[in-house]
Amino acid sequence: MNHDIQIARAAQLEDIGQIASRLGLSEDDLERYGKYKAKLPLRLIRREGPQGKLILVTAISPTPAGEGKTTVSIGLSQGLNHLGRKVAVVLREPSLGPVFGIKGGAAGGGQSQVLPMEDINLHFTGDFSAIEKAHNLLAALIDNNLQSKSRSLGIDPRTVLWKRVMDMNDRALRHTVIGLGGTGGGMPRESGFDITAASEIMAILCLSESLSGLKERLGNIFVGFTFDKKPVYARDLHAQGAMAALLRDAIKPNLVQAIEGVPAIIHGGPFANIAQGTNSVLATRMGLSLADYVVTEAGFGADLGAEKFLDIKCQSAGLAPDAAVLVATIRALKYHGGVALPDLGQPNPEAVANGLPNLEKHLDNLRGFGLNAVVALNRFGADTEAEIQVVAEACRKYGVRFAISEAWGKGGNGAAGLAEQVLAAANEGSHFKPLYEWETPLKSKIERIAQRIYGAEGVVYSKRAERDLKRAERLGLSDLPICMAKTQKSLSDDPSLIGRPTGFDIHIREVEIAAGAGFIIPISGDIMRMPGLPATPSAEQIDINEEGEITGLF
Amino acid sequence: MNHDIQIARAAQLEDIGQIASRLGLSEDDLERYGKYKAKLPLRLIRREGPQGKLILVTAISPTPAGEGKTTVSIGLSQGLNHLGRKVAVVLREPSLGPVFGIKGGAAGGGQSQVLPMEDINLHFTGDFSAIEKAHNLLAALIDNNLQSKSRSLGIDPRTVLWKRVMDMNDRALRHTVIGLGGTGGGMPRESGFDITAASEIMAILCLSESLSGLKERLGNIFVGFTFDKKPVYARDLHAQGAMAALLRDAIKPNLVQAIEGVPAIIHGGPFANIAQGTNSVLATRMGLSLADYVVTEAGFGADLGAEKFLDIKCQSAGLAPDAAVLVATIRALKYHGGVALPDLGQPNPEAVANGLPNLEKHLDNLRGFGLNAVVALNRFGADTEAEIQVVAEACRKYGVRFAISEAWGKGGNGAAGLAEQVLAAANEGSHFKPLYEWETPLKSKIERIAQRIYGAEGVVYSKRAERDLKRAERLGLSDLPICMAKTQKSLSDDPSLIGRPTGFDIHIREVEIAAGAGFIIPISGDIMRMPGLPATPSAEQIDINEEGEITGLF
Repeated sequence: MNHDIQIARAAQLEDIGQIASRLGLSEDDLERYGKYKAKLPLRLIRREGPQGKLILVTAISPTPAGEGKTTVSIGLSQGLNHLGRKVAVVLREPSLGPVFGIKGGAAGGGQSQVLPMEDINLHFTGDFSAIEKAHNLLAALIDNNLQSKSRSLGIDPRTVLWKRVMDMNDRALRHTVIGLGGTGGGMPRESGFDITAASEIMAILCLSESLSGLKERLGNIFVGFTFDKKPVYARDLHAQGAMAALLRDAIKPNLVQAIEGVPAIIHGGPFANIAQGTNSVLATRMGLSLADYVVTEAGFGADLGAEKFLDIKCQSAGLAPDAAVLVATIRALKYHGGVALPDLGQPNPEAVANGLPNLEKHLDNLRGFGLNAVVALNRFGADTEAEIQVVAEACRKYGVRFAISEAWGKGGNGAAGLAEQVLAAANEGSHFKPLYEWETPLKSKIERIAQRIYGAEGVVYSKRAERDLKRAERLGLSDLPICMAKTQKSLSDDPSLIGRPTGFDIHIREVEIAAGAGFIIPISGDIMRMPGLPATPSAEQIDINEEGEITGLF
Repeated sequence: MNHDIQIARAAQLEDIGQIASRLGLSEDDLERYGKYKAKLPLRLIRREGPQGKLILVTAISPTPAGEGKTTVSIGLSQGLNHLGRKVAVVLREPSLGPVFGIKGGAAGGGQSQVLPMEDINLHFTGDFSAIEKAHNLLAALIDNNLQSKSRSLGIDPRTVLWKRVMDMNDRALRHTVIGLGGTGGGMPRESGFDITAASEIMAILCLSESLSGLKERLGNIFVGFTFDKKPVYARDLHAQGAMAALLRDAIKPNLVQAIEGVPAIIHGGPFANIAQGTNSVLATRMGLSLADYVVTEAGFGADLGAEKFLDIKCQSAGLAPDAAVLVATIRALKYHGGVALPDLGQPNPEAVANGLPNLEKHLDNLRGFGLNAVVALNRFGADTEAEIQVVAEACRKYGVRFAISEAWGKGGNGAAGLAEQVLAAANEGSHFKPLYEWETPLKSKIERIAQRIYGAEGVVYSKRAERDLKRAERLGLSDLPICMAKTQKSLSDDPSLIGRPTGFDIHIREVEIAAGAGFIIPISGDIMRMPGLPATPSAEQIDINEEGEITGLF
């Protein structure tokens, strides 16, 4: 089996001007980054008039390996292209840090990749770097103010939660003491680094609709409290103008190509736990303006990614999907049917059947949102016919469309059946209704998500969480939507509860404020915001030759 | 008087394809970054056959405001263009961090700027970010190894001098403790951040001639010692391949335009104190391959910038300037004549005369290198005719060409006289001979620079410096050239000694090793590698409007 990078290298890339022409764009519409990447100026977004149909790709609760949502999304877009539709796939940008750790690239796989994969997985068009700079500029301005005599805002350093970010798996930066070295080196205090994808600026960029909207959100970032307990925002440091200037190009969606020449709009990559986990509103709008069908995806399982996509992004931007695709794998179903990770390769139709309640719950949830869903079984080599039939049969019983995706091995051809089902669902249409109104009280919103989406009995708040919620209310943030930080491994907040757990509570340990992004983050469990490198980092395998060809990315 | 950004905005930019065509390049030769920036692939460098003439712009010992070398360089290239010559100006890339502090952009000024100035001053084509990532990847791999059980190299964390870098003026990051937070957070140890321009990777990129050469230098980076005192290099961590992959695009020189349409190749920006302070060898070679005249500059005064340009860069790459331009200002001459900074605006021909020995020493040094020099007086509005005549007269006496540059206010027209003098000097030619052979012992090289270039009596080494020199010898690095870190404010190592000091010693406090870049850094005095922000950072003034127009950069 070829590695993704070998397949990618064998592919014949088309000039990005050719790709753009499929969306009705001319050379003058593009801001090129070489021959195969371009930024799309925001003026190309059409806010009035006919828009494309929006197809959301989400998944059942995943195994640690992931269930291939990105590959299925790209494959589906290639399948729709086979059927003669004008289509764009709209995706997140991968983070650089993990490339040097365990995981390979995050640009799809096999015959359903976006290209050029080396570029997309490394610096791409510099968006992550720009976000990093904007984030760290605010941090530098905060620390500069902390030691200012003449212009001090009186910020209590112990209340500053704004850390720095770096797009690198670097665990030594998680917890640091900064400002050492005497009076010339700032104010000593505890701080640390998150990975750039976890930056609130990433979440902000992906929810902004314009440069002025971006600037307003940047100004709203909550920095901490003064010694006399007044809130301090980024606008109090006059930071938002320079931060937005740093994001001038990063706010523009990027155009690349899927391996079969389908236009791919790739933009933004916020975390799916402490943030919304989906690409930018502007990228989605760009797709809807330029294509008849837009395939997009949201991180983790549907309990996290789809819920946030619908309640945060869609409500914020006035978007509504026309259909949803729920990706399942035989592996994940067996996992939810009680099979241990090392044994997932063994045929076991009974375990598949035992895992179906997880699928069913996610389907119920999508129906609850009013979405017309299609189950896409992302087929792996080890899957048996008997196992697949279990899923097909169950979908018939549930009355939901079902299709097998072989997009990894066969590209668009392997997703033609899925594309037909999705077309049928999208043409039938959906009747999207959000789970809650933003104006509902914070606790009611949290409880509604926990009970309706996760299937919990109730929500248990720690004392700290209660205090945090009161603080959010005091700051006038009660009308913000909820961005739940929970394990993706279970519908519950306990990673070991597989399938469709019942009779559990959701435990909220603390509640963070993302006043700039515009959501409240109840946190259950531990959230890793700065990964580490493994004992043998994949960086050791990466190399480049004199012709600039990179090896060791996979 | 208009700010630079207003002049820049009023300028009519040409498409970068048009600019490239002046160098005989076609669209296919370019890797575009939008309409006004492009990367130039290394295959365009011609190593055999006719090459352009190389003109090095340097300066007398500067005042804190700088003497306008970049503006004169750009103006001179525009002046040569007026005279019908095929010319390119080859410059350093500005650092992002200082943009948010006191200083404005670093892309020339007035009618002698490079454009688009907002892009060049902000992220440009991502080179600094790529260097930052490559640097910090090595740091992450080091800390990952420090806590590795199975694959430990036994590195003694107290000997690790490789810090992290960030292109931000952020003094709170100068001195830090990292690796806190328990066993999951790495090994606690002291460390810190430098600004990206101070990264050894920046110096390496600017001295490399190819991707394989780059990789070799990256592998040679000295990391520290094991507990049993064995040296550890980046190659021992298998870091060089991934680092080079991150630099795949950053190694390619960038093409932009000067305000009058002259091609400007801008690439690399190493510090001028702890590094060589000049643009990349590849950028210079690119210019010499594509243009008949190449104007380039080196940081700080000629005692630092020109000496390193000649003894490190030229010797390393086999380059030789055909002429040198020594930039002087009336302000700086008055400063060296004993006038205090606040009084530099007052007419004072006597003080100008008293400052001439500084100019004379730099001229002597350039002659010592065998270079045919032209003195360029960078004229400011407050300069009087009487003051200028003092300089003109002195140059006549020294037998050196003299010209006034009014490039800031008048662009190429204001530098036409200078261009004629430079053409005459370059056509006469130079007979470059380096100050020392690299094979000379370390101390002899240091002393030769101190005595011949600075005019010192001798060199005094601290105990630590003696130890450091022995270590460098033990590591087999005696044949590396010297990159002196010394104040730029004086020919001596005492910033208060103006003019042409005599009877002083140079004091070497410590000696650093840049085994990857390939030079030894004797350090005299304090070197600031991570600037801070001022009480009122210029970031507060920077803004962007809905059309993406940035204000507040100057």
